Amino acid sequence: MLSGALEVFYERGYHGASVRDIARRVGVTVPALYYHYENKQAMLVTLLETGMGEVLDRAWQAAKDAIDDPEQRLANLVEAIVLYMTDWVSVAYLDTELRYLDPENRKRYAALRKQLEQLLTNTIEEGTENGVFAVSHPDDTTRALLGMCQAIATWYHPEGPHAPAEIAERYVEIALNAVGARVQRKPTSGKRSTRSRRTDPVE
Amino acid sequence: MLSGALEVFYERGYHGASVRDIARRVGVTVPALYYHYENKQAMLVTLLETGMGEVLDRAWQAAKDAIDDPEQRLANLVEAIVLYMTDWVSVAYLDTELRYLDPENRKRYAALRKQLEQLLTNTIEEGTENGVFAVSHPDDTTRALLGMCQAIATWYHPEGPHAPAEIAERYVEIALNAVGARVQRKPTSGKRSTRSRRTDPVE
Repeated sequence: MLSGALEVFYERGYHGASVRDIARRVGVTVPALYYHYENKQAMLVTLLETGMGEVLDRAWQAAKDAIDDPEQRLANLVEAIVLYMTDWVSVAYLDTELRYLDPENRKRYAALRKQLEQLLTNTIEEGTENGVFAVSHPDDTTRALLGMCQAIATWYHPEGPHAPAEIAERYVEIALNAVGARVQRKPTSGKRSTRSRRTDPVE
Repeated sequence: MLSGALEVFYERGYHGASVRDIARRVGVTVPALYYHYENKQAMLVTLLETGMGEVLDRAWQAAKDAIDDPEQRLANLVEAIVLYMTDWVSVAYLDTELRYLDPENRKRYAALRKQLEQLLTNTIEEGTENGVFAVSHPDDTTRALLGMCQAIATWYHPEGPHAPAEIAERYVEIALNAVGARVQRKPTSGKRSTRSRRTDPVE
């Protein structure tokens, strides 16, 4: 049911998508749809929060795998976020519609996203304190890194030339460079082994 | 007239915005609107292409100012793009609606954007050949840098805590790090003087 809503939101945007359009796409009646979701807003909220929950789960796991090593942790986090963007591309893309969340829903969503930002910022700050990174403004750097990852959802296609793991590897390199990691081109073989565990969809 | 369309597109999305809504916002009749624009698609095209034209103008100028120095050129380009995002934030934000361009319009828009990408990619390639940058995949790096800049349009507010010039300066630093520029913390005073010329709106 949600995947029908997702398709129609993508094609027509939140305000351009009617509940009737969504019901037709899903193949149910409008009342049947209302039985499950109070309204269109509830569908948007569920989709956006499910996506954010997924990326947060992946990010927490990624961070936990490298709790003592901010450089590896940043690499893991960027990889996890990139793979979320490619694995969940249509949900991730829906981020463009978050401006249509009602104020209260938007606040809750922003609080969730803040957790993701905080994970990155803490990692960057820790690495900077330890002298492995050289970042003057961790908040801005977090925003820049999240922005570059978020943009993947706008151009990535599963049939495209790049495999998700390859994109992740390249973005990890860019991110490590961006924070001024001293070891700029560390061997990735070690990273790969932790990686394969986390590419399995969490759901 | 276009600024009315821009507002309504922002608030309701392309498909959620009717020509009637736009006419009402602008304060003209629907036929008056149709006198100027063939249809809603023509308004979207004009807005998106005007924005892309503006950022391209700024980027070409920025590149020209440092034709012999890829590091300075990259700094200028990122600064120009960031300042476009802040100065033209509502048009820049409209990028979310480009999926609603008709195929032919989309193709033309993509060709324009390709020019911007090419400017960055050429600069990154040149810097890598000269040994001032260390980038293994210039295309991906370009996409990452453009993504991080594009995201500014999603969070920047003129009343926010950061001045555009400050954001630009920080993003230039992040970008130079991201390409592995050897001189990571060069004095910015020299850069500033070329900068001030370009912060004047081009229009």
